[in-house]
Amino acid sequence: MARVLVIHGPNLNLLGMKEPDLYGSDSLEDINRLLAEVARQHGLELEFFQSNHEGAIIDRLQAAMGSAQGILINPGGFTHYSIAIRDALSAVGLPAVEVHLSNIHAREEFRRHTVTAAVCVGQVGGFGRYSYVLGLLGLKEHLERKGLPGR
Amino acid sequence: MARVLVIHGPNLNLLGMKEPDLYGSDSLEDINRLLAEVARQHGLELEFFQSNHEGAIIDRLQAAMGSAQGILINPGGFTHYSIAIRDALSAVGLPAVEVHLSNIHAREEFRRHTVTAAVCVGQVGGFGRYSYVLGLLGLKEHLERKGLPGR
Amino acid sequence: MARVLVIHGPNLNLLGMKEPDLYGSDSLEDINRLLAEVARQHGLELEFFQSNHEGAIIDRLQAAMGSAQGILINPGGFTHYSIAIRDALSAVGLPAVEVHLSNIHAREEFRRHTVTAAVCVGQVGGFGRYSYVLGLLGLKEHLERKGLPGR
Amino acid sequence: MARVLVIHGPNLNLLGMKEPDLYGSDSLEDINRLLAEVARQHGLELEFFQSNHEGAIIDRLQAAMGSAQGILINPGGFTHYSIAIRDALSAVGLPAVEVHLSNIHAREEFRRHTVTAAVCVGQVGGFGRYSYVLGLLGLKEHLERKGLPGR
Amino acid sequence: MARVLVIHGPNLNLLGMKEPDLYGSDSLEDINRLLAEVARQHGLELEFFQSNHEGAIIDRLQAAMGSAQGILINPGGFTHYSIAIRDALSAVGLPAVEVHLSNIHAREEFRRHTVTAAVCVGQVGGFGRYSYVLGLLGLKEHLERKGLPGR
Amino acid sequence: MARVLVIHGPNLNLLGMKEPDLYGSDSLEDINRLLAEVARQHGLELEFFQSNHEGAIIDRLQAAMGSAQGILINPGGFTHYSIAIRDALSAVGLPAVEVHLSNIHAREEFRRHTVTAAVCVGQVGGFGRYSYVLGLLGLKEHLERKGLPGR
Amino acid sequence: MARVLVIHGPNLNLLGMKEPDLYGSDSLEDINRLLAEVARQHGLELEFFQSNHEGAIIDRLQAAMGSAQGILINPGGFTHYSIAIRDALSAVGLPAVEVHLSNIHAREEFRRHTVTAAVCVGQVGGFGRYSYVLGLLGLKEHLERKGLPGR
Amino acid sequence: MARVLVIHGPNLNLLGMKEPDLYGSDSLEDINRLLAEVARQHGLELEFFQSNHEGAIIDRLQAAMGSAQGILINPGGFTHYSIAIRDALSAVGLPAVEVHLSNIHAREEFRRHTVTAAVCVGQVGGFGRYSYVLGLLGLKEHLERKGLPGR
Amino acid sequence: MARVLVIHGPNLNLLGMKEPDLYGSDSLEDINRLLAEVARQHGLELEFFQSNHEGAIIDRLQAAMGSAQGILINPGGFTHYSIAIRDALSAVGLPAVEVHLSNIHAREEFRRHTVTAAVCVGQVGGFGRYSYVLGLLGLKEHLERKGLPGR
Amino acid sequence: MARVLVIHGPNLNLLGMKEPDLYGSDSLEDINRLLAEVARQHGLELEFFQSNHEGAIIDRLQAAMGSAQGILINPGGFTHYSIAIRDALSAVGLPAVEVHLSNIHAREEFRRHTVTAAVCVGQVGGFGRYSYVLGLLGLKEHLERKGLPGR
Amino acid sequence: MARVLVIHGPNLNLLGMKEPDLYGSDSLEDINRLLAEVARQHGLELEFFQSNHEGAIIDRLQAAMGSAQGILINPGGFTHYSIAIRDALSAVGLPAVEVHLSNIHAREEFRRHTVTAAVCVGQVGGFGRYSYVLGLLGLKEHLERKGLPGR
Amino acid sequence: MARVLVIHGPNLNLLGMKEPDLYGSDSLEDINRLLAEVARQHGLELEFFQSNHEGAIIDRLQAAMGSAQGILINPGGFTHYSIAIRDALSAVGLPAVEVHLSNIHAREEFRRHTVTAAVCVGQVGGFGRYSYVLGLLGLKEHLERKGLPGR
Repeated sequence: MARVLVIHGPNLNLLGMKEPDLYGSDSLEDINRLLAEVARQHGLELEFFQSNHEGAIIDRLQAAMGSAQGILINPGGFTHYSIAIRDALSAVGLPAVEVHLSNIHAREEFRRHTVTAAVCVGQVGGFGRYSYVLGLLGLKEHLERKGLPGR
Repeated sequence: MARVLVIHGPNLNLLGMKEPDLYGSDSLEDINRLLAEVARQHGLELEFFQSNHEGAIIDRLQAAMGSAQGILINPGGFTHYSIAIRDALSAVGLPAVEVHLSNIHAREEFRRHTVTAAVCVGQVGGFGRYSYVLGLLGLKEHLERKGLPGR
Repeated sequence: MARVLVIHGPNLNLLGMKEPDLYGSDSLEDINRLLAEVARQHGLELEFFQSNHEGAIIDRLQAAMGSAQGILINPGGFTHYSIAIRDALSAVGLPAVEVHLSNIHAREEFRRHTVTAAVCVGQVGGFGRYSYVLGLLGLKEHLERKGLPGR
Repeated sequence: MARVLVIHGPNLNLLGMKEPDLYGSDSLEDINRLLAEVARQHGLELEFFQSNHEGAIIDRLQAAMGSAQGILINPGGFTHYSIAIRDALSAVGLPAVEVHLSNIHAREEFRRHTVTAAVCVGQVGGFGRYSYVLGLLGLKEHLERKGLPGR
Repeated sequence: MARVLVIHGPNLNLLGMKEPDLYGSDSLEDINRLLAEVARQHGLELEFFQSNHEGAIIDRLQAAMGSAQGILINPGGFTHYSIAIRDALSAVGLPAVEVHLSNIHAREEFRRHTVTAAVCVGQVGGFGRYSYVLGLLGLKEHLERKGLPGR
Repeated sequence: MARVLVIHGPNLNLLGMKEPDLYGSDSLEDINRLLAEVARQHGLELEFFQSNHEGAIIDRLQAAMGSAQGILINPGGFTHYSIAIRDALSAVGLPAVEVHLSNIHAREEFRRHTVTAAVCVGQVGGFGRYSYVLGLLGLKEHLERKGLPGR
Repeated sequence: MARVLVIHGPNLNLLGMKEPDLYGSDSLEDINRLLAEVARQHGLELEFFQSNHEGAIIDRLQAAMGSAQGILINPGGFTHYSIAIRDALSAVGLPAVEVHLSNIHAREEFRRHTVTAAVCVGQVGGFGRYSYVLGLLGLKEHLERKGLPGR
Repeated sequence: MARVLVIHGPNLNLLGMKEPDLYGSDSLEDINRLLAEVARQHGLELEFFQSNHEGAIIDRLQAAMGSAQGILINPGGFTHYSIAIRDALSAVGLPAVEVHLSNIHAREEFRRHTVTAAVCVGQVGGFGRYSYVLGLLGLKEHLERKGLPGR
Repeated sequence: MARVLVIHGPNLNLLGMKEPDLYGSDSLEDINRLLAEVARQHGLELEFFQSNHEGAIIDRLQAAMGSAQGILINPGGFTHYSIAIRDALSAVGLPAVEVHLSNIHAREEFRRHTVTAAVCVGQVGGFGRYSYVLGLLGLKEHLERKGLPGR
Repeated sequence: MARVLVIHGPNLNLLGMKEPDLYGSDSLEDINRLLAEVARQHGLELEFFQSNHEGAIIDRLQAAMGSAQGILINPGGFTHYSIAIRDALSAVGLPAVEVHLSNIHAREEFRRHTVTAAVCVGQVGGFGRYSYVLGLLGLKEHLERKGLPGR
Repeated sequence: MARVLVIHGPNLNLLGMKEPDLYGSDSLEDINRLLAEVARQHGLELEFFQSNHEGAIIDRLQAAMGSAQGILINPGGFTHYSIAIRDALSAVGLPAVEVHLSNIHAREEFRRHTVTAAVCVGQVGGFGRYSYVLGLLGLKEHLERKGLPGR
Repeated sequence: MARVLVIHGPNLNLLGMKEPDLYGSDSLEDINRLLAEVARQHGLELEFFQSNHEGAIIDRLQAAMGSAQGILINPGGFTHYSIAIRDALSAVGLPAVEVHLSNIHAREEFRRHTVTAAVCVGQVGGFGRYSYVLGLLGLKEHLERKGLPGR
């Protein structure tokens, strides 16, 4: 049974409280609950982590080495400049999927550039909370096709 | 029962014959068969269309008005410059999901820019043929959440 | 009596059905009828052509050599990247006028750049269907001032 | 009966004296006479203003509030950098049409960018003095379609 | 008692008549009255000048040499390109504060670049008419801290 | 009585110890004392927070929801790249004012671009410690004009 | 005996009729006849294809798989933007040589960038119709040195 | 005897009063006196004009048609953006020489670009007041070599 | 005896575990042990600090004021965007040397730009763990030549 | 009998010794021998010159005036920046053909830009040593079509 | 009596033989003879040097230390990229004047950027051979005003 | 015993004579003497070469094939544009280390880009003459770790 680390980047803890037009009305807890349900159906084990701290996200990614087989990450605002998180994803070496609630290509120009995507398996964005579900399914499919890393 | 138009852009008819490292070993027919199976499970009806002609893709998108409720599109090379397809997606007004077999952010610089994404609901890329499955599920979820257009 | 080829680029066949805020509520047929009436008053003969295919537009432009004396063209989305249509306009050598329904300078950044304009006599944009009328009058004036080509 | 303010930007007072290849052999007076004739036929009243002073053009635009219903402007060289004139057009709020004698897309690179066009109704360029006539007709059509402002 | 020259750039004389969403409903006279009241409380003497003419603003800045000890300036649209006003501010050598009614960083891209700011003491923007008050207080504080120039 | 959260970004805790030419000789405590005095006079309550950690600043901004009515922030070096702080300011939704000790337009090129300013009410910069005072007054004025948020 | 597919892009069917200064006075038929003669001398078999349709060129390239051993292509205006043709050349996998009649480095700036060249064996340009002859010889040499593909 | 119009752009009337490090300690009158002396020695007649108004400079340039045979111009800050002055120089058609007191290539980046130089005969810069003398000699040499215009 | 603070940026704690092709097979502990040995030979005292947190690195840099005489820093991914660390290095004012394990000029384009280098004494990169040794020797040499700061 | 100067730029003397993957295994002597054979067959006389010195190449190009009728040049690394060689080719005025062993469009970004190509008749690249042969044939054809220069 | 080193860059030895439209019909010897005459009148001693070799120019510049008091240089094509010559001018430390025969601002875009100008006293361009004369006079004036270096 | 070729680029022969603030007061001979001493201690044999000629540096690099095992190079101004030297370093294939006396990241913008670094083992800069010593030690370490090339 594969274990997946789910990482929520900065400000995602505010989900559901503000800007529902942009991000929907679900809270982060709602999303995690939904993910947990989907994971249960697909025989995956999930660990959740949210932080507004770039360093804490890197620490957590590193801690996944040896304990998790894949990463589902919404880097939030860090998507666009955190080369340090990119390097962490690359160094940890676990298959990762990048997800976004909104369609980053339909927003401000600076949101169209992502520094983290190049070291991920794939990306999903624009489906609200369901982006996470799709990302998780994609990660599972990838793990099955390639075999679990580190085993 | 919602009907979804699946559009495959230029050169996708060659899938499975060439460059398996980049695009996998599935043929386009394999992908369509997989999609049809998934659609059947989720109560969706699919129509398939592949063309190497930008204009034919626009014609087909326009023809979907009134007959389909959503669009699943892999614009292939047109992703990066076809403002005409972008305008077609926008004018037709059906919810569309953009999918890519490979991770466009891990390839040549010019592939990181997409002109079509901004007028789609969302995007999925990097999961090989499974990108299509995820895109279809995302589209279905969107249709259920927003209600079917044109009804 | 001069003959003018009127070319409507991609998605203009949808006029009146969608996005009236942007393009007005006239159908393409309404525009053609209006143009025909204006042409009749000014002693011009019109031929109409609409296509979503870049290649078909080039074919039609080439076919105008010897049969038409001027071109009225709304290249639609092709305005911004079709060097092939630009080359066709240049090779055919007939005086051409570029028209746009909307004001391309008040829209997305990428719509402000036109590759076709440099090989046209002039441009008209922003007046809705009336852009065509103005473009036709401008073309007529040009033909009268310079004399008809190819005679 | 609508009143239209016609503004000629810097160096247009030299028309007909120099560079006929680029701008034609008509003097500014010829253009104004032609415009007056067209206006008379269409029941428009015209006021003419030419200045080489950016500030004087802004003053005149502001003075049009309450007295004119539309603006026909050839900003000349100011087209490419005068944000102050752009702001004046925007603040005055009257429908304006930008015209150019030559085809700005077929000249130096820096002439292809216009800062004023985005706050105008539309643009006409490349038809020599006839650009003004077309611009005036376009403005009249706009005023009729939208109704006169400030009444 | 220090004397401050208050300069309002192009189109600011229209304040209160147009675009209240962007610039508020105060007229320029309201702003000047408010500033005069604040100046009186802080022992400052004010001179007001508004012009739509870049050259007139430069003339007025130069005339301030010897008669004023500081400058409060809203260069309006000139902010973004008038190197001549920048040079005037620099040559005159009086401490100057740049103010803007709106937040220039939340508007069009071209408004984010200011050529005049680099030769000013500081900047205030986004507070409507109150930007002027804050700018004046900042200028006074600067004059007190550095001593009055030219004495 | 409105409560305002005052946030000092990275390295501002060193104020007064180093680089007095650039930032003046006041310590951060001096600035806070000055601000407290100004706040007392204007019936505002202040909370101070300084951190070198982007994440800690985001945490603190989020904690202000429900407890503060406005934000006075000097993002320091984060001004130029922290999209995460920008997103926090935007998500928290409280009126914020950005202040800088120095004139960022008179320094290195990369300091002229600010990613946080677009989601603030306004900006003040270049007045040393007095930038904070002006920013606070501007924030108070904004709160009075718009009414306090979240009440 | 190797078979080579010769592809002429958009507007090349007009050769000899227009713009002889730029492209010479030979018709496309003249060029094909010359090529056929050269091919005969070198034991090559040629197939000719001209189209103004990007999609038709892609279709034809794909059809060459299994029937031809090399490609000689003048993509015309498509040279500068057709990523779809680039992808076709890459997917088909046959050695291709890109030729141009004129020297693209001595023309407009936008003609200096080619998106198709990177997936070709080599390039020849600037020799008028003789560019084709040189390209064919270069392709033959390449086939002999590397051995024929797909055999 | 040729007549030369000498134009001094914005802020040059302040010469000698401010920034001697950058522009030297000569006043504008000193420069004019020096030029007059040089002109006398070389049989030239000079007219002087200084203005801070772009429009006034254009007016004066136009007035030189028919009365002067050459132009010596230091456009000051207008050098870098006044396309209107460039157009005036071009329309007036008299040989012009651009001079600068300082070396514009050794100052801020934005001063290295000149929009007016392309329509002048030549340029001289970096020699302080002596730049004017050299420019005048260069203009005289040009007039002698080419013959006086307009005679 | 001079004390040097050695700072290892994000992900450097993973050294030796991953990507040996890029960074070598030494662990961070190996590097520190090597450095300690070199320091002992050269009469330097070292303090080591590694963090994935930008803020923690800034805190640690600030804490070095008064206790260390020099800084040896590998900012890892922060090299390319952390203006906050740059400001910390600048504010702390101790001589710093920037080191990189790999040759940043032979990797991705975005790694060629460093924001921190401009405020360091010098840089060493491309020698694997030996970059640290060279950087330490360079720092020592600098301290001896300039004298120890803060004494 | 026409004489052609063959110029090999920097590092081409190392051909065959290094990097055979990139440039093939032929030595420069092999290439020259091949070229001499081809020249003999086509009635051309060749002179060979190789240098790593930009100035020596310019000297040699100049010396060709009056003695040679055409130039075949592989400028090597100078291709991308030597405006001096470009100027020499232009000043000498002999028809020149630029050749490259490798396909410069399939290598590093900076190799895609050539400053010398614009003043040559044409270009050939990507065929290894055979690029030279093709270039020579192209030059001969050009000489025959245009007539020999300088006779 | 001051000695001035006159340096002519690459291809200037061809003057008068080619491209008279661009550079005039004078030979380099004519220019030197003219300069010698002017120098004699002004009590200057000249040394002439022409080379197509960047390194030879640097060698000659260095040799001027101690023997010459000023430099008159036309760097030719090196103007636009030779940072090595710029560094030589800067290291040698003698006042230098840059001259150009043609107006570099009226030619190709890449000729508008000069890397050498920033370390010169001033520049003269556009006056044909007379640019040298003006440059020499400017250099003399500079030497007199500042005093001779190295004495 | 490994032999290392030490190359000093243009203007480095002037070291110690000029600009000591930037480059220190050591002469090139001092640096070579220091290097020789260090080499002796580490069992390395050195050959020294300085030239202001790009081509001579390339010649010397090529001559090192077979005689030297490593290269220590300060390309001086060539660092920023000499693709020919880059190609020489790459073709010669010996491990090379790039050194700079000054910190190129703390100088003009154009000095931050190096074209030669990408083909070197590593870089050292900012330590004055000691940069060479560090570079030599780094090169030695590299040779020991990888084994000597060409043996």
